[in-house]
Amino acid sequence: MIALKKCAPEQGLQWCPDTAAPEPGPRDVVIAVSFAGVCGTDHHIYDWDSWSAKRVPIGITIGHEFVGRIVSLGSAVERFSVGQRVSGEGHIGCGVCHPCRTGNGHICEQVDIIGVDRDGCFAELICLPETNVWPVHDSVPDHVAAILDPIGNAVHTVSAAQVSGRSVLITGAGVIGLMATAVAVASGASSVFVVDVEEARLAQAAELGATHGLLAGDPEWPAQVRRHTGGQGPEVLLEMSGAASAIKGGLRALRNGGTAALLGLPSSPVELDLAEDIIFKGISVLGINGRRLFETWYQVEELLVSGRLRLDALSKTVLAFDDFERAFKSRTSAETTKVLFEMPGAR
Amino acid sequence: MIALKKCAPEQGLQWCPDTAAPEPGPRDVVIAVSFAGVCGTDHHIYDWDSWSAKRVPIGITIGHEFVGRIVSLGSAVERFSVGQRVSGEGHIGCGVCHPCRTGNGHICEQVDIIGVDRDGCFAELICLPETNVWPVHDSVPDHVAAILDPIGNAVHTVSAAQVSGRSVLITGAGVIGLMATAVAVASGASSVFVVDVEEARLAQAAELGATHGLLAGDPEWPAQVRRHTGGQGPEVLLEMSGAASAIKGGLRALRNGGTAALLGLPSSPVELDLAEDIIFKGISVLGINGRRLFETWYQVEELLVSGRLRLDALSKTVLAFDDFERAFKSRTSAETTKVLFEMPGAR
Amino acid sequence: MIALKKCAPEQGLQWCPDTAAPEPGPRDVVIAVSFAGVCGTDHHIYDWDSWSAKRVPIGITIGHEFVGRIVSLGSAVERFSVGQRVSGEGHIGCGVCHPCRTGNGHICEQVDIIGVDRDGCFAELICLPETNVWPVHDSVPDHVAAILDPIGNAVHTVSAAQVSGRSVLITGAGVIGLMATAVAVASGASSVFVVDVEEARLAQAAELGATHGLLAGDPEWPAQVRRHTGGQGPEVLLEMSGAASAIKGGLRALRNGGTAALLGLPSSPVELDLAEDIIFKGISVLGINGRRLFETWYQVEELLVSGRLRLDALSKTVLAFDDFERAFKSRTSAETTKVLFEMPGAR
Amino acid sequence: MIALKKCAPEQGLQWCPDTAAPEPGPRDVVIAVSFAGVCGTDHHIYDWDSWSAKRVPIGITIGHEFVGRIVSLGSAVERFSVGQRVSGEGHIGCGVCHPCRTGNGHICEQVDIIGVDRDGCFAELICLPETNVWPVHDSVPDHVAAILDPIGNAVHTVSAAQVSGRSVLITGAGVIGLMATAVAVASGASSVFVVDVEEARLAQAAELGATHGLLAGDPEWPAQVRRHTGGQGPEVLLEMSGAASAIKGGLRALRNGGTAALLGLPSSPVELDLAEDIIFKGISVLGINGRRLFETWYQVEELLVSGRLRLDALSKTVLAFDDFERAFKSRTSAETTKVLFEMPGAR
Repeated sequence: MIALKKCAPEQGLQWCPDTAAPEPGPRDVVIAVSFAGVCGTDHHIYDWDSWSAKRVPIGITIGHEFVGRIVSLGSAVERFSVGQRVSGEGHIGCGVCHPCRTGNGHICEQVDIIGVDRDGCFAELICLPETNVWPVHDSVPDHVAAILDPIGNAVHTVSAAQVSGRSVLITGAGVIGLMATAVAVASGASSVFVVDVEEARLAQAAELGATHGLLAGDPEWPAQVRRHTGGQGPEVLLEMSGAASAIKGGLRALRNGGTAALLGLPSSPVELDLAEDIIFKGISVLGINGRRLFETWYQVEELLVSGRLRLDALSKTVLAFDDFERAFKSRTSAETTKVLFEMPGAR
Repeated sequence: MIALKKCAPEQGLQWCPDTAAPEPGPRDVVIAVSFAGVCGTDHHIYDWDSWSAKRVPIGITIGHEFVGRIVSLGSAVERFSVGQRVSGEGHIGCGVCHPCRTGNGHICEQVDIIGVDRDGCFAELICLPETNVWPVHDSVPDHVAAILDPIGNAVHTVSAAQVSGRSVLITGAGVIGLMATAVAVASGASSVFVVDVEEARLAQAAELGATHGLLAGDPEWPAQVRRHTGGQGPEVLLEMSGAASAIKGGLRALRNGGTAALLGLPSSPVELDLAEDIIFKGISVLGINGRRLFETWYQVEELLVSGRLRLDALSKTVLAFDDFERAFKSRTSAETTKVLFEMPGAR
Repeated sequence: MIALKKCAPEQGLQWCPDTAAPEPGPRDVVIAVSFAGVCGTDHHIYDWDSWSAKRVPIGITIGHEFVGRIVSLGSAVERFSVGQRVSGEGHIGCGVCHPCRTGNGHICEQVDIIGVDRDGCFAELICLPETNVWPVHDSVPDHVAAILDPIGNAVHTVSAAQVSGRSVLITGAGVIGLMATAVAVASGASSVFVVDVEEARLAQAAELGATHGLLAGDPEWPAQVRRHTGGQGPEVLLEMSGAASAIKGGLRALRNGGTAALLGLPSSPVELDLAEDIIFKGISVLGINGRRLFETWYQVEELLVSGRLRLDALSKTVLAFDDFERAFKSRTSAETTKVLFEMPGAR
Repeated sequence: MIALKKCAPEQGLQWCPDTAAPEPGPRDVVIAVSFAGVCGTDHHIYDWDSWSAKRVPIGITIGHEFVGRIVSLGSAVERFSVGQRVSGEGHIGCGVCHPCRTGNGHICEQVDIIGVDRDGCFAELICLPETNVWPVHDSVPDHVAAILDPIGNAVHTVSAAQVSGRSVLITGAGVIGLMATAVAVASGASSVFVVDVEEARLAQAAELGATHGLLAGDPEWPAQVRRHTGGQGPEVLLEMSGAASAIKGGLRALRNGGTAALLGLPSSPVELDLAEDIIFKGISVLGINGRRLFETWYQVEELLVSGRLRLDALSKTVLAFDDFERAFKSRTSAETTKVLFEMPGAR
């Protein structure tokens, strides 16, 4: 089969048409991939940055967002059938640690991530343990089903922060920040302030339901957000950028007693005035990792199938799989437009 | 001044044009009432049912939902000014018990309720301690400001049950059930099932955002609700009717692990199969009383001012104050149409 | 092998020395049982009451509390080894429903319970799916390891009600009520009131840490509990008796805004004054079923291994397995003394 | 009357025997101080560090921890009487902001703190609004009643982090860290690890119930704590030191999904690896400020009056008030020994 692999410790990925097809173990499911999403993580691995060099083994197939159809099942698999349309959770927990056995497998300490620690979905076929396979509801189109994973990140963040009836500040309107905007609106946020460096992203956020957009270039944005929320600041901060200035500005804007959910990954340590920005204000800061297994998946399905969550305004580009280099060329465009590969299984 | 009073231990109310105006104590505020809402409680007192006979002192002015303007202030009041438009919380806590000193004054054991235990708002003037006065935002029209109290009941119930992203069943589409329908939609419920005995109320619920309506007359409604929620039942029950059959049917329909919030007051004890309907299912049942002081008031304001909560479809009737008998004649209509009195202060 | 079975739709159990040994499926574990606990459920099945007649299939081996050592493993089991000392969770979830996939398998709607729906542990060998096997810490003696299941019931109830720093009322001092007394003390309850019909049980509760004991025969006990808690009532009720009078008295005693956790199973419907006892008081009622998989098991281990939970004062009787009739003779004694069978695997 | 004041923008405090006695406003209470506690904040003001220079007005009487007896009441005060023994909450909220009106007055944005923003308790008399006066239970001795404020800090921190049945790591065994150790034990923590730079403090922590003590000088302490908690780390971190190394080490030691409550105030910004130490681990960080009004005060009373919380092992020194310079001489000793002044009102 064809697979897109990291074959040398340097920038780039290799197109490998003679890759061996995966053999399912007794509890595994093999899926023919129809569409796959390109994530920031894939860019990091393409670029071979310091994180990738430390974590990712040479020879691996990358990619972790997908939808496809089951082509074969391990001998002990009972609950799935060949032909079924499915997506999958890419964090494969150890199954025996405290987090794994209490519904928190997303923070397993021995987690194995597809496309990072083991072969991923930028290939004709992907093999997953059945515990991680998610049946896709008929009403969810392929282009959305392929990105249930990052939608889940947005839903997990919004859900953890409890936005219903509250004013919400979202810092960073990249793909996940934009998804979070739509999810916050669908979840009952009373107002949604979005901050970003680019006007175009703010415009897209407005289409997805944001009530206010602010340019990050204006250093007065935290004060403006406070002014628009009765001088007390928003009740919730969803940090989606990983930028130190956004984290600091967001904490400064936040209301005393508010909740900050951090999903964006800073590329280096951040200096925080813990006393002024967290302790005196009585703020709760929640580190958000991945999605809850499988509470978040059910929430995503409920939001999509009920029609409350609408992602039509999210800009998407579908590329042919063999045109993969285009996806990795322009990092900037990738950050606002979700790029999908049309894979062999789509035909 | 004019006041509407209970002057004898029997059905009816008396129109008293020579009532002495209230004198504010040092921490009190006197308000000229513009509009006042008629609540089920007022009907009970009019009818002089067994609850009223036990609780309500003869000679009292009734009514507890209102909006008006401040006309005088006690000597120690600092934060309000004459002319300000305000509503008020009718539960006056003792201020010293554990609930009162921990933000839970709505469940004070020595609570004094206006229009029940002390003079209420069906009068030209009402006197309230400043702690209970609520400034009304300019964007909230009088006809809504007069009923912030029952809207608060609906918001408290919905908020306690945490409906965001969840499927919700509402039993009883009287005025508060209808308000709760709109509040649940505004708060991010993924679907809202409403059950009532009358088609007309279901139609109004649909206008307020309900996704499904079911007639209570069909004994199969709990099974139907389960069928529409993937066979597992809704995650949340909001019980607004007080009817034993609704409580039982609602608990039966509810998903294992779900949450039931009870606001409707049964008129007599209800026989429950605690083992089957609560314990084996791992259900949480929340008794809801009034509104939280003042968390709920802030939530109501946020929902109204942000425009998320729209109550236009709620049917209302405004009567001249001296036409009060009409309001008490037809109990049934009062249950689906919110009746407001236009009071002397409105002119 | 030997097994204790229900072989006819009538009172009693049958001693079956020629029972076929279980064959493990690929994901199963077979355990030689050392000690097994006798539970109220076993008495119901022995007596063949109406619940048993409806639920329990003829021919089944009963019993669901045990400790033993692994004797064989299915082909796909990786995380256990032969000879390991283990106990097990008897609720076998379907694994695919919403509760099962979100850490709430204890309220699975298709749950299969050992000793009720499928063969249990009153036998030389028991076969369990590996997901339900629990490795026992070396420091936990066999006589405690055999009853991790009911200790889990007590811990789940106490933990759900959040007793730390709070005053707690426990109604019913049978075996689980007594365990809950010790667990509440270990979990930081500030005071523990225990109500029961028998002086002897109150004495045992005192040994396990109860600060006050009250006889259920005195109808004034709810008022007394309120008097001892500053007139406001305890903050938490743990209902362990299933008796209607205890449920009603407990709710009456409870503080406004308090939490009631119900574990005891009433044998018939209970008439509740929902308005006075739950709604006006703003009380939360939690239905408690079984134990959380596997959060509760970790909590039990932490409490036992840390030495905070001491159950030495809990009275126990160990019977030889072939002396089983004695265990079922006296229901009353079984309710206050935990009866254990010494099983073939103990030798 | 005598008062201890900051009279010049430099190190030191001035003994002022001719200070005018406070005049109560209509809602105020004047208290003759019997015992007063010396806090780290008082040291900062004595030293006139950069924080004090920015915040504290010249001419102020300092001190905010005390017990005393009421000597006079404002005209509108009803619930207190002259002669009553009381302590008081030093954070005086504005009473009208969202936090103040929802039971969160401790994080009021316009808070006025006694001994910092307005006259405090190192004086013969202190004047407080009646809302902030706390009646002291007869069973609580003066030497404990004088320090209900810092005990409240410890209880608020422990309570927010929910330690019942959990393993707890406390970094910093100064006076509040030591109090938190005793509170965590009383609240049901399964094990309590304490880290500090000094052996003597670890010894005192052990007397107060700590199960493990570790020297902060050994850089391996986070790894050791993980080893002692099954390799997964403690479930709760209570950070009481404000030291950057303790915050970082504590977060590193903490279990995935754990909770960190921060009370210690870092004197300068702290550089955190948010990705590794908070986001990937799914950790919740809670900023803790003061005490909840008045939920924490009730919790403190319940813990003390029930006898669960024992602070006998906490080392204390009582100095005559005019010997005040001794209290400020040795900062180090003050950090492990609680210093109390015996005030004029004690006689």
